[in-house]
Amino acid sequence: MDLATLIGLLGGLGLIVGSMALGGPIMAFFNVPGLLIVLGGTIMATLINESMGQVIGAIKVYLQAFFEKKADPTELIEKVVDLAAKARKEGLVSLEGEDIPDPFLARGVQLGVDGLAPEIINEILAGELDTMKKRHTRGQTVFRFMGSTAPAMGMIGTLIGLVQMLQNMSDPAAIGPSMAVALLTTLYGAILAFVLFQPIASKLEQRTKQEVAQKSLAMIGVESILKGDNSMVIQSKLDAYLSPEQRAAKAEDA
Amino acid sequence: MDLATLIGLLGGLGLIVGSMALGGPIMAFFNVPGLLIVLGGTIMATLINESMGQVIGAIKVYLQAFFEKKADPTELIEKVVDLAAKARKEGLVSLEGEDIPDPFLARGVQLGVDGLAPEIINEILAGELDTMKKRHTRGQTVFRFMGSTAPAMGMIGTLIGLVQMLQNMSDPAAIGPSMAVALLTTLYGAILAFVLFQPIASKLEQRTKQEVAQKSLAMIGVESILKGDNSMVIQSKLDAYLSPEQRAAKAEDA
Amino acid sequence: MDLATLIGLLGGLGLIVGSMALGGPIMAFFNVPGLLIVLGGTIMATLINESMGQVIGAIKVYLQAFFEKKADPTELIEKVVDLAAKARKEGLVSLEGEDIPDPFLARGVQLGVDGLAPEIINEILAGELDTMKKRHTRGQTVFRFMGSTAPAMGMIGTLIGLVQMLQNMSDPAAIGPSMAVALLTTLYGAILAFVLFQPIASKLEQRTKQEVAQKSLAMIGVESILKGDNSMVIQSKLDAYLSPEQRAAKAEDA
Amino acid sequence: MDLATLIGLLGGLGLIVGSMALGGPIMAFFNVPGLLIVLGGTIMATLINESMGQVIGAIKVYLQAFFEKKADPTELIEKVVDLAAKARKEGLVSLEGEDIPDPFLARGVQLGVDGLAPEIINEILAGELDTMKKRHTRGQTVFRFMGSTAPAMGMIGTLIGLVQMLQNMSDPAAIGPSMAVALLTTLYGAILAFVLFQPIASKLEQRTKQEVAQKSLAMIGVESILKGDNSMVIQSKLDAYLSPEQRAAKAEDA
Amino acid sequence: MDLATLIGLLGGLGLIVGSMALGGPIMAFFNVPGLLIVLGGTIMATLINESMGQVIGAIKVYLQAFFEKKADPTELIEKVVDLAAKARKEGLVSLEGEDIPDPFLARGVQLGVDGLAPEIINEILAGELDTMKKRHTRGQTVFRFMGSTAPAMGMIGTLIGLVQMLQNMSDPAAIGPSMAVALLTTLYGAILAFVLFQPIASKLEQRTKQEVAQKSLAMIGVESILKGDNSMVIQSKLDAYLSPEQRAAKAEDA
Repeated sequence: MDLATLIGLLGGLGLIVGSMALGGPIMAFFNVPGLLIVLGGTIMATLINESMGQVIGAIKVYLQAFFEKKADPTELIEKVVDLAAKARKEGLVSLEGEDIPDPFLARGVQLGVDGLAPEIINEILAGELDTMKKRHTRGQTVFRFMGSTAPAMGMIGTLIGLVQMLQNMSDPAAIGPSMAVALLTTLYGAILAFVLFQPIASKLEQRTKQEVAQKSLAMIGVESILKGDNSMVIQSKLDAYLSPEQRAAKAEDA
Repeated sequence: MDLATLIGLLGGLGLIVGSMALGGPIMAFFNVPGLLIVLGGTIMATLINESMGQVIGAIKVYLQAFFEKKADPTELIEKVVDLAAKARKEGLVSLEGEDIPDPFLARGVQLGVDGLAPEIINEILAGELDTMKKRHTRGQTVFRFMGSTAPAMGMIGTLIGLVQMLQNMSDPAAIGPSMAVALLTTLYGAILAFVLFQPIASKLEQRTKQEVAQKSLAMIGVESILKGDNSMVIQSKLDAYLSPEQRAAKAEDA
Repeated sequence: MDLATLIGLLGGLGLIVGSMALGGPIMAFFNVPGLLIVLGGTIMATLINESMGQVIGAIKVYLQAFFEKKADPTELIEKVVDLAAKARKEGLVSLEGEDIPDPFLARGVQLGVDGLAPEIINEILAGELDTMKKRHTRGQTVFRFMGSTAPAMGMIGTLIGLVQMLQNMSDPAAIGPSMAVALLTTLYGAILAFVLFQPIASKLEQRTKQEVAQKSLAMIGVESILKGDNSMVIQSKLDAYLSPEQRAAKAEDA
Repeated sequence: MDLATLIGLLGGLGLIVGSMALGGPIMAFFNVPGLLIVLGGTIMATLINESMGQVIGAIKVYLQAFFEKKADPTELIEKVVDLAAKARKEGLVSLEGEDIPDPFLARGVQLGVDGLAPEIINEILAGELDTMKKRHTRGQTVFRFMGSTAPAMGMIGTLIGLVQMLQNMSDPAAIGPSMAVALLTTLYGAILAFVLFQPIASKLEQRTKQEVAQKSLAMIGVESILKGDNSMVIQSKLDAYLSPEQRAAKAEDA
Repeated sequence: MDLATLIGLLGGLGLIVGSMALGGPIMAFFNVPGLLIVLGGTIMATLINESMGQVIGAIKVYLQAFFEKKADPTELIEKVVDLAAKARKEGLVSLEGEDIPDPFLARGVQLGVDGLAPEIINEILAGELDTMKKRHTRGQTVFRFMGSTAPAMGMIGTLIGLVQMLQNMSDPAAIGPSMAVALLTTLYGAILAFVLFQPIASKLEQRTKQEVAQKSLAMIGVESILKGDNSMVIQSKLDAYLSPEQRAAKAEDA
């Protein structure tokens, strides 16, 4: 469970709702047609943009943002060093059937056991990494698009409200509340964009970067195993990708 | 038929028109000179920017966005594997006259049958891919340009209306409606940009990415056929570009 | 004559002027000091930015946008194929004195006739292409800069007008017209930017892309002639850069 | 201590607070719920975006911006020249145990003493440099995100305030102060973004560039030591990365 | 003396001041606290961003923008051709002590005379070019940062003024002038950004591009001299970087 995401989302909405409640009846901020035009309009514009499946998939992706995927480079490096040592002693084929938790590393090692040439293995893994990156980027694009469309839909709603208000100004007492209602869609658009869509898009971007880093590390590991590098070289090569904290923790363990 | 695009476009416009109708007579939102300056001005600015043919072509491109082009990588991969197996057994020339549904793959194979060197074939296919990308990008550029010009034209229209209103404020009752009319062009600009132009530009961008991915896959396939890679290598190389779902579906079929 | 540019420019201005005239006396939109601060200020800011010669040159470039330069890749390809065939039969030196309409192709062939090595010729042509690209980009930069500065100058003018209006509100009847005048500079800035400067900058960008594509094609052609590629290879290589329409037209001709 | 950062921060806040105090009681600018929604909302949105640890880490990074890290390329170059001279005379192993203040240079030399091949050492150092760059970039991203979110939260707060004000306009005397309070959150958002977050993000960016430059210099130095370049070559190679001022200072020293 | 920059700056400021004077007493536009918060705030934010020395250096850089540095590629090419001819006849060492006005070319030739290998010379010159580019870019960054911060500070000032005005609306006659004063900081921010900072940043960018082009030309020249290319090859290679006008002028001279 990615607690920070949940806290951030609920906390952000809580602060906004609290701020609304402070100044008077909260129902004043509730307007169904306004909500419909902003949220509905954003979804419609996204449908133009993406296939039906992509939009439904985006909801799944959205929920995934609340669950943390652990990527532990230190563990991966240890595994690579072990595998490399075994491969040097007993031959590459001895890695057949090894228990390798990281699926990307496992795939690379399996291809090696199957006897494919290192360049081809590298090409295959690079292809998979690239495909993953493109797939993830597309998910982020959906939320980025929604994040930039929601304020636009909010503005459209406000303009509609303003035009209606301006054409009917016979009752001065009604002007204030009408304008308040008109402004609500701009408010909805801003909340959707800056609390719901943009931060999630950024989070997915961070996740992708982490996963790419982990998979790139696995690729370097596979390459080293196939080349038969000795333990010290592999260790030095892979440790280069650890943060100072991770290196310190590792040194402590040792 | 790309249903999502149609639903998105009609749904988006429906929500906006519904929202207009809710608050009073919808005719209040109809203003011919305003529409003329925003839509006309956008088209005029685009004409400065692009040749006549390009603008007319853009309408064709716009309509194309409503028709889905299926690109099935799984099918393409199967075809490549079959062709490669045949080429290994009976020689490259045996592929002459083969029925290859993907035109880009067919073209690459034909060039191989014609006896051109693999590097030259690769260069030719890369050239065609690049030309397609540039052509598509230009189509998208037209709609991006329209999407950023429409709000500007809307603002110009509103400024003209405001200046006219401000210079003639003797009748206070007329101020509201005049300002409403002035705001209409801003509203038109926003609707054109955020419902009609920007999402279509994004959709065309997505399409191009898909087509480039499919064609790149075909290029790798052609390269593998010419190199005489064995089935397992080709399969592994090309499967790297499938999504997890596509791989699962493929495994199920097998 | 690039008709679309002229129509776009006159049509855009016509729509705006028409819209102004519709609502009352058009002279209300005419304000010399306002025009001076927006157009003058934009030119002054550009002078800071560019040398005197560059600004004067920009006007020449601006006028060039109205004249179409035809770049016909099909014709170029035919010429290259002919030259290559002749060079294969009678030697490279036989191309001396050939009539080659495309000056860039002519230059490359001449360098080959002069006996320079293919790599050096390639380097020279790439240098010229790069220099052209940089020169063109600079011209576009001037108009992009003007397009982003004009609205800023318009805003400065409006702020000055607002401050003057706000400090002198004793006569309520004067407030409206004063504000109208203040808004005029914002309007001028928007018209200059979105009708005159930005679309022309985009047009020049399109032109550059076309010219770069044509020159790149010529470079590939020169390379092929020097390498002594056979007709079919050259044809395939160069045809890759044609659009489907151009290929269809070519097939029809043949 | 990085005095400029401290002066800039205190000076900027001082000018703003002074300007507030000049026009009346400063308490008029103090509004706890407003501060809560802007600062709290920004932090919440950042939590969605980043893990808990990352946000806490960002505070540490923020404070680091006040402490200057000296990176003296001249000193580094001298050290490299000395080490290279010693390595040429007494062999690479003689560098074992040398006192090398720059830890990155020390690490490279140690790897050389350990007998690793130059290409592998280069790969390792490049990996470390890349990891550092990514780590730093992420820190900057947090502040950039905060800098763009704070004004959005300010706008949300202002919209909430405006809606509340507009729905309760019975007391005309209360409209002004209510609107003032509504505007406060926009003001808070702007101050947070443009005085606290954006400049610090830019500062961290500058720091990263400096550190990357210093480490790149060390990498070139290590490469030269391992290759056994003579003093003059090393000196010329490394001096290329000094600024004219640094070269002048160095010449004076010599 | 770069006259255009001076004319642009004085002309731009003149137009603005003239426009202010036209509508009433110019002193209405003078507000010391407003100027302090905008200019002071911008400088403070820049101090956070940059070291003290960098900010003071920026003033020197600002003044440099008024002095034109001539970079004459035609002259440089002539010199290179002469040097190459001499080197071919009398050997590279004969270039010792030659009078070479371009310091970058002189440096490259000197390194050649000193007997360094061409690849190392190329590496050294590329390092110097890169260092220059980074140094210049940093100077531009300061002004770009100031150009984007000044309007933000202007907005902060206006918000402060508006809040003060809104909380004290008992005297209706004071509202106009108070609002005028509040708007002044926005005006100051816009003038600083769009007349003083942004155009200078653009000018420095242009300068850098010119200098990089000139130095790149010198690098190609040095490479050709060291390789012993003949005059015709060098001439063709270097002429590729001249503009059509420069080539025409050169042809006329010859």
